[in-house]
Amino acid sequence: MKTVDLNADMGESFGPWVMGQDAALLEVVTSANVACGLHAGDPDVMAATMSGAVARGVGIGAHPGFADLQGFGRRRMHLPEATLRHLVQYQLGAAQAMARASGGRVRHLKLHGALSNMASEDEGLARACYGAAQEVAPEVIVMVLAATAQQRAAEALGCPWAGEIFADRAYNADATLVDRSRPGAVIHDPEKAADRVARMVRAGAILPDDGAPIPAPVDTVCLHGDGATALAIARAVRARLEAEGITLAAFSGRRGRFA
Amino acid sequence: MKTVDLNADMGESFGPWVMGQDAALLEVVTSANVACGLHAGDPDVMAATMSGAVARGVGIGAHPGFADLQGFGRRRMHLPEATLRHLVQYQLGAAQAMARASGGRVRHLKLHGALSNMASEDEGLARACYGAAQEVAPEVIVMVLAATAQQRAAEALGCPWAGEIFADRAYNADATLVDRSRPGAVIHDPEKAADRVARMVRAGAILPDDGAPIPAPVDTVCLHGDGATALAIARAVRARLEAEGITLAAFSGRRGRFA
Amino acid sequence: MKTVDLNADMGESFGPWVMGQDAALLEVVTSANVACGLHAGDPDVMAATMSGAVARGVGIGAHPGFADLQGFGRRRMHLPEATLRHLVQYQLGAAQAMARASGGRVRHLKLHGALSNMASEDEGLARACYGAAQEVAPEVIVMVLAATAQQRAAEALGCPWAGEIFADRAYNADATLVDRSRPGAVIHDPEKAADRVARMVRAGAILPDDGAPIPAPVDTVCLHGDGATALAIARAVRARLEAEGITLAAFSGRRGRFA
Amino acid sequence: MKTVDLNADMGESFGPWVMGQDAALLEVVTSANVACGLHAGDPDVMAATMSGAVARGVGIGAHPGFADLQGFGRRRMHLPEATLRHLVQYQLGAAQAMARASGGRVRHLKLHGALSNMASEDEGLARACYGAAQEVAPEVIVMVLAATAQQRAAEALGCPWAGEIFADRAYNADATLVDRSRPGAVIHDPEKAADRVARMVRAGAILPDDGAPIPAPVDTVCLHGDGATALAIARAVRARLEAEGITLAAFSGRRGRFA
Repeated sequence: MKTVDLNADMGESFGPWVMGQDAALLEVVTSANVACGLHAGDPDVMAATMSGAVARGVGIGAHPGFADLQGFGRRRMHLPEATLRHLVQYQLGAAQAMARASGGRVRHLKLHGALSNMASEDEGLARACYGAAQEVAPEVIVMVLAATAQQRAAEALGCPWAGEIFADRAYNADATLVDRSRPGAVIHDPEKAADRVARMVRAGAILPDDGAPIPAPVDTVCLHGDGATALAIARAVRARLEAEGITLAAFSGRRGRFA
Repeated sequence: MKTVDLNADMGESFGPWVMGQDAALLEVVTSANVACGLHAGDPDVMAATMSGAVARGVGIGAHPGFADLQGFGRRRMHLPEATLRHLVQYQLGAAQAMARASGGRVRHLKLHGALSNMASEDEGLARACYGAAQEVAPEVIVMVLAATAQQRAAEALGCPWAGEIFADRAYNADATLVDRSRPGAVIHDPEKAADRVARMVRAGAILPDDGAPIPAPVDTVCLHGDGATALAIARAVRARLEAEGITLAAFSGRRGRFA
Repeated sequence: MKTVDLNADMGESFGPWVMGQDAALLEVVTSANVACGLHAGDPDVMAATMSGAVARGVGIGAHPGFADLQGFGRRRMHLPEATLRHLVQYQLGAAQAMARASGGRVRHLKLHGALSNMASEDEGLARACYGAAQEVAPEVIVMVLAATAQQRAAEALGCPWAGEIFADRAYNADATLVDRSRPGAVIHDPEKAADRVARMVRAGAILPDDGAPIPAPVDTVCLHGDGATALAIARAVRARLEAEGITLAAFSGRRGRFA
Repeated sequence: MKTVDLNADMGESFGPWVMGQDAALLEVVTSANVACGLHAGDPDVMAATMSGAVARGVGIGAHPGFADLQGFGRRRMHLPEATLRHLVQYQLGAAQAMARASGGRVRHLKLHGALSNMASEDEGLARACYGAAQEVAPEVIVMVLAATAQQRAAEALGCPWAGEIFADRAYNADATLVDRSRPGAVIHDPEKAADRVARMVRAGAILPDDGAPIPAPVDTVCLHGDGATALAIARAVRARLEAEGITLAAFSGRRGRFA
């Protein structure tokens, strides 16, 4: 019996500015990655998002990013390791408090934007971030991009972790993502995305367009909430997985030290 | 045998900007109120300040304020109650994480600047802030300005709390502070300040210049770290209390529900 | 031959967050009030908005507000007069540079949000803001809420100014706005709004629901771009004024010292 | 008859945080580079700094940097060219307004921190910044690090510019700075610094410790205001230049299109 988690970034509104379709996505996902106020989100948005997650039984994740609101955390910043650690810890702690105030708790942590990109390429940076989080909350499950330096960092740390694949991105033969500039890199067709996801979940592998299956920890599938087709893809993925008898549930973090 | 706590605001540097004389003050106080990044402080400063406090056995407090860096949290902002609650919770959570990462924990919470001033006048506002903090961390001891709406709010909530007096401010007969524009409102002479503090601690009362003693919970004394004479006053107060055989130790929060 | 200006707030997006329907509104208005980066807008958004205004011959205004992004400049802040003056000057200067870079220039200035509300009640505060702006750019036309302290301040300063009425708000007999909690305070019907505006422009007066016409400088009409009916009202107002042969054009600032 | 300018960064305080010794430095320099509010400075600090400069006849410069207060603009950010241009323009415009309000005007522009470092290595980036500034204020003199990509960019643009050398840094034979990790890279002895500066001004050349003189436009000398010896160096440089009969005056921007 297969089980998989569906996750999406949420709580990315700020003050009067609305982003995303959180209410609709909360009906689809089993885990919500909630922005922590430095690249998006504010304490009010965090509370509202987490309350919504609690009400629907959706797992709450801290989603820390660079302190760059205008750039939405998508611009790389080169910080000393200690600064990076404190940046993650600060946001994780804030998220824990907002989760408690919302009647829930932070189950997982996922890095955002440029911070995630850098961590997927640099195991040392990923270890710094995850190690810092573990210092604050050793029970928190780290969500890693499967088959990247993020996964290696989590394995090396021995912390609880879960592996993630993308619903709407094509993979190269080496498990990296096909560059967005290449045709077919981004999947816009809901049924095609749903089909790919179902096959990867069943196979427990990343399936490149061109190349052999790459066994990978497919614990959670990353969905998106903005863009014209994102919500349609999210719903199609969920429907397909349910139709195939795959259980949808927040991951348990059984990998890592508790594996 | 009398016991009292000495507290001061710390961790008010930001990025490259240094404020206060934290290292010197850490040798004097038994509790440190650490800024939480929104009116002062940043994650690096918080970590450094809290590590210093842990190393010296000084109690760590979260010191939340308005999100107004330029105004240093000293400008009043009128926020909806929910926003106020989330503002306190966010900062408390961030402080808890930084304290854990520094090998310590948040023992107390004290409101900063304009937020404290407003809470000392408005019991409802104080209850919102303290109640929000208790939702996140019921064990945290709330530090209240003795004989103000802050104290009444803590009593009404039944949360653990400690009463605070000022070392360098004269009191009116109704326990309010003498307006700064009046002569004698601020005490600049270290020995005079030390003398006043020692008498108030022994009396368990606020001693107005003009008026009868006002019985009050004198659990902690607020010291300052900036200004020409602040450190001299802090040291004189400590020396006097020690000379009089009064024990200096972080308060226990024995008031409130655990009284 | 009557002439009137139509204005709306624009450039209120920030980083990745979109607000308003600027492209559609630019087809309707003759003046755009552009946020200056402290309560909304950023340099990229300012440049894009102003370039759009230049391309359509729409007059560019600086729209300064409090430095409170999360609160969108809608929360009152009590600042020293010098700080208030510098706040306005800083934003006006930034707007002038972005306008120049966009091939245009700042023709007018309108206060935003809580700053505008405070200035409409407090002539001294309005004079501080407008006087500060005049120090930087004496040619800039100040847009004032007609029949408020803003108008009195502009008259007292003798600076070029233009009077503004609202398209979608009912007025009391004393020219103040009907409180939003009262039925009929906000007009949602496009044709009704268009009718009211046309009558006020022709009359050169504010027309309370209940009370005599109040002669007022009706130089510009404030339209909105967000909300379900805002754009429909904006278009209906423009269509009605054109149908009645009223010329739509950015105001000249003929009032004040150049009157 | 030789003339040279002495410049220093100023106005780097923020809200309640004081940085530098601006009052003392204003007695030494002939040009002040004033932070523009995004990496340091705020509108109040800008106004106070510029008023001081006007009172002492010191030339005012806009000193734009990355919008990174915590990092003080010293962390590299990789921005799209248009964003970079708008970033410079926004800050230059704000500085122009504050200068006007202070009774002065912006005479020059110098890039700050990481933005300057990047521009000294990347002519395209330097051209983007300087070209953007020229769009807003073609009369503003660009201060460039002599013999770097900054100088080449200014020459290519044909804008008015002035070349800058450092008072307290040793140069390599290729006109780059000796790495700070090498002994002798930073000069701490005031007389030694004064001697070097005087020789470079007289020679019209950068004088490497090890290598032949490199003819360079020595129009202005960069002094610092923080650190134990900075002010002593600044004063020693000024005294030496005066003793040698070199005239100290804000540069004229005679290079570039007006050469």
